[in-house]
Amino acid sequence: MSFQNPVFIPGPTNMPEVLRKAVDMPTLDHRSSLFGEILHPALKGVKKILKSETAEVFIFPSSGTGGWETAISNTLSAGDKVLAARNGMFSQRWIDMCQRHNLDVEIVETPWGEGLPADRYEEILTADKAHEIKVVLATHNETATGVRSDIAAVRRALDAAGHPAMLFVDGVSSIASMDFRMEEWGVDVAITGSQKGFMLPAGLAIVGFSPRAMAALETATLPRTFFDVRDMRKGYANNGYPYTPSVGLLNGLKLSTEMLLGEGLEAVFARHNRIANGVRAAVNAWGLDLCAASPDLYSDTVSAIRTPEGFDSTRIVTHAADEYGVAFGVGLGEVAGKVFRIGHLGSLTDVMMLSGLATAEMCMADLGLGIELGSGVAAAQEVFRSSKGNAAKAAA
Amino acid sequence: MSFQNPVFIPGPTNMPEVLRKAVDMPTLDHRSSLFGEILHPALKGVKKILKSETAEVFIFPSSGTGGWETAISNTLSAGDKVLAARNGMFSQRWIDMCQRHNLDVEIVETPWGEGLPADRYEEILTADKAHEIKVVLATHNETATGVRSDIAAVRRALDAAGHPAMLFVDGVSSIASMDFRMEEWGVDVAITGSQKGFMLPAGLAIVGFSPRAMAALETATLPRTFFDVRDMRKGYANNGYPYTPSVGLLNGLKLSTEMLLGEGLEAVFARHNRIANGVRAAVNAWGLDLCAASPDLYSDTVSAIRTPEGFDSTRIVTHAADEYGVAFGVGLGEVAGKVFRIGHLGSLTDVMMLSGLATAEMCMADLGLGIELGSGVAAAQEVFRSSKGNAAKAAA
Amino acid sequence: MSFQNPVFIPGPTNMPEVLRKAVDMPTLDHRSSLFGEILHPALKGVKKILKSETAEVFIFPSSGTGGWETAISNTLSAGDKVLAARNGMFSQRWIDMCQRHNLDVEIVETPWGEGLPADRYEEILTADKAHEIKVVLATHNETATGVRSDIAAVRRALDAAGHPAMLFVDGVSSIASMDFRMEEWGVDVAITGSQKGFMLPAGLAIVGFSPRAMAALETATLPRTFFDVRDMRKGYANNGYPYTPSVGLLNGLKLSTEMLLGEGLEAVFARHNRIANGVRAAVNAWGLDLCAASPDLYSDTVSAIRTPEGFDSTRIVTHAADEYGVAFGVGLGEVAGKVFRIGHLGSLTDVMMLSGLATAEMCMADLGLGIELGSGVAAAQEVFRSSKGNAAKAAA
Amino acid sequence: MSFQNPVFIPGPTNMPEVLRKAVDMPTLDHRSSLFGEILHPALKGVKKILKSETAEVFIFPSSGTGGWETAISNTLSAGDKVLAARNGMFSQRWIDMCQRHNLDVEIVETPWGEGLPADRYEEILTADKAHEIKVVLATHNETATGVRSDIAAVRRALDAAGHPAMLFVDGVSSIASMDFRMEEWGVDVAITGSQKGFMLPAGLAIVGFSPRAMAALETATLPRTFFDVRDMRKGYANNGYPYTPSVGLLNGLKLSTEMLLGEGLEAVFARHNRIANGVRAAVNAWGLDLCAASPDLYSDTVSAIRTPEGFDSTRIVTHAADEYGVAFGVGLGEVAGKVFRIGHLGSLTDVMMLSGLATAEMCMADLGLGIELGSGVAAAQEVFRSSKGNAAKAAA
Repeated sequence: MSFQNPVFIPGPTNMPEVLRKAVDMPTLDHRSSLFGEILHPALKGVKKILKSETAEVFIFPSSGTGGWETAISNTLSAGDKVLAARNGMFSQRWIDMCQRHNLDVEIVETPWGEGLPADRYEEILTADKAHEIKVVLATHNETATGVRSDIAAVRRALDAAGHPAMLFVDGVSSIASMDFRMEEWGVDVAITGSQKGFMLPAGLAIVGFSPRAMAALETATLPRTFFDVRDMRKGYANNGYPYTPSVGLLNGLKLSTEMLLGEGLEAVFARHNRIANGVRAAVNAWGLDLCAASPDLYSDTVSAIRTPEGFDSTRIVTHAADEYGVAFGVGLGEVAGKVFRIGHLGSLTDVMMLSGLATAEMCMADLGLGIELGSGVAAAQEVFRSSKGNAAKAAA
Repeated sequence: MSFQNPVFIPGPTNMPEVLRKAVDMPTLDHRSSLFGEILHPALKGVKKILKSETAEVFIFPSSGTGGWETAISNTLSAGDKVLAARNGMFSQRWIDMCQRHNLDVEIVETPWGEGLPADRYEEILTADKAHEIKVVLATHNETATGVRSDIAAVRRALDAAGHPAMLFVDGVSSIASMDFRMEEWGVDVAITGSQKGFMLPAGLAIVGFSPRAMAALETATLPRTFFDVRDMRKGYANNGYPYTPSVGLLNGLKLSTEMLLGEGLEAVFARHNRIANGVRAAVNAWGLDLCAASPDLYSDTVSAIRTPEGFDSTRIVTHAADEYGVAFGVGLGEVAGKVFRIGHLGSLTDVMMLSGLATAEMCMADLGLGIELGSGVAAAQEVFRSSKGNAAKAAA
Repeated sequence: MSFQNPVFIPGPTNMPEVLRKAVDMPTLDHRSSLFGEILHPALKGVKKILKSETAEVFIFPSSGTGGWETAISNTLSAGDKVLAARNGMFSQRWIDMCQRHNLDVEIVETPWGEGLPADRYEEILTADKAHEIKVVLATHNETATGVRSDIAAVRRALDAAGHPAMLFVDGVSSIASMDFRMEEWGVDVAITGSQKGFMLPAGLAIVGFSPRAMAALETATLPRTFFDVRDMRKGYANNGYPYTPSVGLLNGLKLSTEMLLGEGLEAVFARHNRIANGVRAAVNAWGLDLCAASPDLYSDTVSAIRTPEGFDSTRIVTHAADEYGVAFGVGLGEVAGKVFRIGHLGSLTDVMMLSGLATAEMCMADLGLGIELGSGVAAAQEVFRSSKGNAAKAAA
Repeated sequence: MSFQNPVFIPGPTNMPEVLRKAVDMPTLDHRSSLFGEILHPALKGVKKILKSETAEVFIFPSSGTGGWETAISNTLSAGDKVLAARNGMFSQRWIDMCQRHNLDVEIVETPWGEGLPADRYEEILTADKAHEIKVVLATHNETATGVRSDIAAVRRALDAAGHPAMLFVDGVSSIASMDFRMEEWGVDVAITGSQKGFMLPAGLAIVGFSPRAMAALETATLPRTFFDVRDMRKGYANNGYPYTPSVGLLNGLKLSTEMLLGEGLEAVFARHNRIANGVRAAVNAWGLDLCAASPDLYSDTVSAIRTPEGFDSTRIVTHAADEYGVAFGVGLGEVAGKVFRIGHLGSLTDVMMLSGLATAEMCMADLGLGIELGSGVAAAQEVFRSSKGNAAKAAA
């Protein structure tokens, strides 16, 4: 695989030069005052991107999975009840983690390709008169299926049921790429990582805790030390960290938030939407379907594309890597072999995206899928032309 | 603080150019076969450095603290008994973690500056006829006090007591810099991080599990998901990871192990010993004492230097940073204000070390400590001259 | 313009990561023995790429233009006669330089788009009974018109005329990308730069002198100091340089030659030919013509594409930069406004090339050129598919 | 030699991280408008550092030697008379270049270690009633001997003689490190390079031409093309270059001038003076002499240190490289074997300098020179302590 080609996986994303250089720092004493000059702007930048005035942000040398564990272990106790829908690989993994941590998960089985069932949530919450459910889990963007769910609708379900459960949202593949409103949607814990919308290497779990989530720290008895946000909070107050921080990644995060806020979040979201529209136009031109069941569910960061019955979709991904040096995503879990995924988030231009679509076409043609070469590219070109002018300015 | 000067903190260390460049990779698809070509050599290299034929190595996007949590959460259950000595800040923190995870820690209070009390361990273990103690914790090198303990002696204590407890060793600031023999010393879990002897940025917890520790996975009931080595093991078998790995850091680790093994571990240890001897000669010339109580305890990676009664040692560290742009380590915990620390591990030459000693001299003189300028430098120069010839070749 | 997109100019080319990192060196004492360990392998590598056993290679901190000046000022004297054809911007500039250096240039005017007129050369040389012509200049690849001339034919012309003139070849945009045979073609001075086939930043003039050219040093009286190869030769013999060398670029050149020779020159040439064929297929699908008059003249490193009469071709280049953040080359000199150029040399994959073609299509469509979107891409995809398998392995 | 140690050669200097990163750019189309955004600020920044309102600045992909050639070939004609003093290796080389370019050099032999003989210049100029001397050459800082001459005195000599000759100054190792006043001193051509005070890799010749020098372009008949400033001037007016520029180095130069001007030139000069004073204090403590004959001649960028009669000074340099991985400068020309040189310019801290002095001490002791270890370091420490506070802030 050639490092010259962009990647088209749903994270880690392509990285801007300036962010790579910000991460690649010489050693800085993390107990010196210089560290605070990196940490605090990074925390503040994240908070703005989460769109919260009241959340506290914590950053761990970890991954999005560590962010999930931070959320539950700081706020819950063994036996606590959690409500979650399983509609893809990542929601499934979070459920699995809860079970390993001895939580009692009420699972709403949901077809992969569908969004979170806010109506069903409302029924269950309404029925939970004893308020045993402590937390509702919500995967904002199911990276496995390319489905973006409606978090505002989940909040409305909670409100309609008059239920006090907290709302925890996995925004790993949505935050900083698609609209996310922590405060407005009443999100209590928001979770993301460095390697998606922030366009950095993997290595940071990024979480925001609402005041209610912070209050839950006091009663939660699940054991935690590495992921204990109380230690983090204490450290931050002294410009420090409870252990050795990833200074370079934090420096990158500081700059990443500056870049994203400088471009403007709405512009960032529009850019992702434009590129996603190009990909979807190509899929349509190829005569294929997305895994996502309906347009309102289409993700702007990843498209999971169904391949014809009887064809092993993994072959496209393997073929692209072996023959063209290009990385796409395989199908995972229930949709393994049935979909391949094109990631279209982070540091990506229209022009780069076209090379990904052109590669997918060659692969499908090579493997006998009867795709007309150039057809998807042409459809995407039409989308990109009509929104031209934005392309060149972005992602500098 | 100027990035031109080396740092003299006990980690993160100064980094070789080639390692920084190995870490600073373009995005690579961690689900592609290329990832295995980075992961497996890194794991094998670490295993050689741990000097174990039978251990399984696991690497987490985390820190040394995460390594501690990996050790205990994968092998123990709530209420399990653990034996540990408290002789410095880092042993204290590990004890604290155990307590937060509901383990029952039998603490042997030990003066800060002393090594692990193997004799006292033997007595306690001998008395524990019921074999309630499941694990003995041992901090190989107390980074706070500059004390290297004798792990072989701890092993002998276990053997003499005929006790089956496992031996977990924190080698964060010793492994890859000082002699460490996982197999020979019967270490069951060895823990380190990327930012010390491996000369990389912080961000990786590196652990080795003996077959006995692996067997303990089956019975341990402490909740863990992010740090679950079973998931890691399964991932590695498929050239993968249970979540998004820090590919760049792993690539750096691969190269770091190649560099260290290429230089030869004995040469690496000798290099650290030579530089440490230079520092100790300087301390002696200054008329000061080390925190470490006796020469057999002297650490080759960090020296904690006692300042005169009534003088706040933190002032040296602050002054060095503010006036000369140089980072030393402050005293921590019980020895806060009483010692300052000079880190001398990782990517460091004799020549760089002399600049650190010269800076310490200027600081002490500036602050009225009555140090003769050049005296410590001259003492270290004598040490370095007598071992010259090794200096130029190392640390390329 | 976004740095995320590849460039499609005929040099400087896109650069491989590893070469950028090789260039970005810390300061090395160029008077130390380490410098020779960089210099000599670089010189030897270049010699192999020039395909000469007997040439001496010299490298100046300069550009290809400096290479031209090195060639003439070291071998000629004021008033000396030189034969040259003018068939493009770069041959014109070399002629201009000769005139400024008081040489007497016999110019063969040749249509831009045609190759070097070997037949006409033969006539002129045959007629030059007094052997007043000292040197024949030959631009191997006219970067302005995308025309590769037949240097072997120029050699045959010299031989057929029994003329002793030396043959100087500008191989700036051919060497290391297209077949070049210094020894076999009897080339006396070969000239190139770092920023084309060697895939490095600009900054090095690279020249090879045959034994005959070296002999001419003794009689040449054109003044030169910076470009004097005698000083270089003396310096190299002592692992040194007559002035401060560009150590990082030389280190990059060393690695570049290792990469090229490791891939195999024939494979490198085939790779350039494959990508060029894809571009030409696209041009054909668009219904446009190349500036190069016939297929035997088609360059494998740059295509100059004629736009319809009355259309200012520069608009495509400006539009691509402004709207899509992509760099193409404008027409120069006689063909300014009549052609735009796509560079396809250096570190480039089929996949990257497709994004360039897709961008060109969007630009032409945007500017009303009536191009069918996707048509050129599809034609290139067909070319690349049929040679698939080579693509992924190259350009790592 | 380890890349971890600083270099102590009189250029190329140690480089700040941020400048290395500015140089290490992805490929940018040098014919796009982006290039002008790099070029023009770099030119303007250089002009401010030269302290001229009226000069035109030109930058060539070359070296300081190329700068010398630019100066003479653009302003003079064969047979023109030039006045120059030979007081070191670099003045000698410039004289040699003039002779190779068929200029008639009147050489004032001057002891190596002495400054430019302004009095003698005045006599010669006064005697030159016919004003045959077109140019006076002046090496501001003789890098070979560590002698800084008084350019203002040379100007006064010209004025006193009422002579119209132009004044060309080699400021390669002075400009941007020591006071230089192009306008005030009536300098007609000022020459420097990227690898000294600008703290960049070698690869750029940087020249400033006064209006008088620009006027001389019209009459000068020495052949030049690569170094022709008329082509440069034309290129710059169109945001371009006459050939392929070193874009990365220019980008580094832009940032370097911002850094230097941001720090303040007087602060930059004071910093160089402070470090030089430390070195000189060490030399004095060692009981050695500088090559420079008197304190008013001491260079703030390089010290040439005389070793005892009968001792080959080159051994110190070789020994430092072989045994300690540190680079010093050898003696050149007349003082080869008699002096070794310590460079102290560019990106250097007091702390780094102390490591160089400590290394020199070890080398001299190893080689039997009877130096007291620590003595020079202590003397320099006293100097640095008394000016502490500036050290930490500089060179970030």
